[in-house]
Amino acid sequence: MTRAYNFCAGPAALPEEVLLQAREEMLDWHGKGLSVMEMSHRSDEFVGIAQEAESLLRELLSVPQDYKVLFLQGGANLQFSSVPLNLLGSHSSADYIDTGIWSNKAVKEAARYGKIDVIASTADQHYHRVPQQQELKFNKDAAYVHYCSNETIGGLEFDYVPVTENGVPLVCDMSSTILSRPIDVAQYDMIYAGAQKNIGPAGLCLVIIKESLLDREVSSIPTMMSYRVAAENDSMYNTPPTFAWYLSGLVFQWLKRQGGVAAIGEVNARKASKLYAAIDESRLYANPIAVANRSWMNVPFTLADTGLEKAFLKEADAAGLLNLKGHRSVGGMRASIYNAVPEAAVDALIDFMHAFEKKYYPA
Amino acid sequence: MTRAYNFCAGPAALPEEVLLQAREEMLDWHGKGLSVMEMSHRSDEFVGIAQEAESLLRELLSVPQDYKVLFLQGGANLQFSSVPLNLLGSHSSADYIDTGIWSNKAVKEAARYGKIDVIASTADQHYHRVPQQQELKFNKDAAYVHYCSNETIGGLEFDYVPVTENGVPLVCDMSSTILSRPIDVAQYDMIYAGAQKNIGPAGLCLVIIKESLLDREVSSIPTMMSYRVAAENDSMYNTPPTFAWYLSGLVFQWLKRQGGVAAIGEVNARKASKLYAAIDESRLYANPIAVANRSWMNVPFTLADTGLEKAFLKEADAAGLLNLKGHRSVGGMRASIYNAVPEAAVDALIDFMHAFEKKYYPA
Repeated sequence: MTRAYNFCAGPAALPEEVLLQAREEMLDWHGKGLSVMEMSHRSDEFVGIAQEAESLLRELLSVPQDYKVLFLQGGANLQFSSVPLNLLGSHSSADYIDTGIWSNKAVKEAARYGKIDVIASTADQHYHRVPQQQELKFNKDAAYVHYCSNETIGGLEFDYVPVTENGVPLVCDMSSTILSRPIDVAQYDMIYAGAQKNIGPAGLCLVIIKESLLDREVSSIPTMMSYRVAAENDSMYNTPPTFAWYLSGLVFQWLKRQGGVAAIGEVNARKASKLYAAIDESRLYANPIAVANRSWMNVPFTLADTGLEKAFLKEADAAGLLNLKGHRSVGGMRASIYNAVPEAAVDALIDFMHAFEKKYYPA
Repeated sequence: MTRAYNFCAGPAALPEEVLLQAREEMLDWHGKGLSVMEMSHRSDEFVGIAQEAESLLRELLSVPQDYKVLFLQGGANLQFSSVPLNLLGSHSSADYIDTGIWSNKAVKEAARYGKIDVIASTADQHYHRVPQQQELKFNKDAAYVHYCSNETIGGLEFDYVPVTENGVPLVCDMSSTILSRPIDVAQYDMIYAGAQKNIGPAGLCLVIIKESLLDREVSSIPTMMSYRVAAENDSMYNTPPTFAWYLSGLVFQWLKRQGGVAAIGEVNARKASKLYAAIDESRLYANPIAVANRSWMNVPFTLADTGLEKAFLKEADAAGLLNLKGHRSVGGMRASIYNAVPEAAVDALIDFMHAFEKKYYPA
């Protein structure tokens, strides 16, 4: 078996140790004679798996006691509706920060349920930087402020946590940065994240929410989208995606073995730093994002000669460096270097990029 | 490794061959150097996996060309909201048939979105039979008629397909009977089914719907719940639960190798028939459901001496016969004998039941 280096933006690489353990336990979990996939979600065994996963996540992120952790379905996209349906309450509007494709999708969906005010946008600067705190023109009656801490497609990341006014809750789509470094959960009122980047396989979505926000849902909300109902039922109002939940627990165990989010954050900083350095030092490759806002997780780059893109992708693939093609909406290349992408993968990519430039774009 | 016989109602047993194949391919799918879980859902590889699964399902159930097959999330519970939000359209009401806990849950959720008329119920007969066709008092202006073909908890199953009037669409929650025998999809306008019984792991929900029904959604529907949007995007409006989708494809391949739904239907009929016979012939065990409406998939039974229940479960467990406890809402025992539960498991259960009766409840 040869494992490739996988730079996919999501569903993304998983730690090899996690896949090995899942393989080992595939037909017979802990001598119980059945797969995790075949267990009742209400069995002692699965409830134990589920609770352990939640405990580990709470430990890794130091989640305060007054926050609920929910294991949901539907990905971040379903949250684009769930957030307004759960949090608008009696408010008529919410504030959104626009930093690219994903925050825009959130705006469009939320606008179907309330008045959405885009309080800051860097669209006119091609989303090459994030708005600064002083540019955020909050509405004092907003139900909440929403932003996306990392735009997976643009490779644009907030280097600060916005501070709202008048105690308006802060909601963050953290799909592609959660667990990549320490965060202070208390700075947020709600965090959500699709699993398929730093958490586990696709089909699971995490919500971390302050309990005091669970009383705001609008009456028409589908029961399955209610955070209150999910919280009251320990995310088992219905059958949850049990295998994805179990795998996320294995990922959390792995992350703890790596030394937790502080330790992985150091590795991630180093991975990103050396890859951006390689891009900046080259004549062939370029990344347009303001240095302070460059994503640690998603590194898009262009080739000065776009005619070389096909060869780049083909030769990278042959070298076992997979999924480097940029998102269809923007083109170019993108290397997603989530937690499970080892530093050796980034080193191999940099070596490949150097060799490719030397061969096809010599000085 | 010892695999137990697993009678769980869901998440239920999966075919051992499927788990073995998934284990084999866990870290390196077809020599590509990565797990299916780590593939982009838009990659050629995964799109191929997804399309093959759909093709196999269409072949197994002979799904007519004018029906869309959707691979969604959220389980049947989310469909309890999705059905009215997608199908009420300009109609003000829908007809529901009440046969137990699951159809009731569907009624309650739908009633949040429109006027729901329960056109037939056997609640006053403890749900020991299903309403007959002539008892169904349809409303001619109903948006649709909804029923649950198999009540997983009650063990109650329709032995006929209701015929609606005035061309009102028929919607069926087929979560626990789909693929258990041949069905004529053309008799339905929409079928939905949570995966975790006869399809694959939890976290996936199948919808089979006539294309002509895709223009009825209400304007407030969350985009992720829209069948139209899912159909227009081949169930990839967002990242689907890729691993569950892949596993369902493996289950469909396995089912085809068994000879398809006709062949598995014969096995299932035999399994159910011998288990009900064992119950009926005993003094200790009993099942209250009208013979024609006994579920092929979920066989609940009580013990004449309820004081023996604990011993029954304990000794069954020790004998490798797992998850025989009835649903917490009704008590007693329940053996779910889905496609992946081999006939040998049913034989072993019957032998155990005989021996247990002889030991603890001799004549």
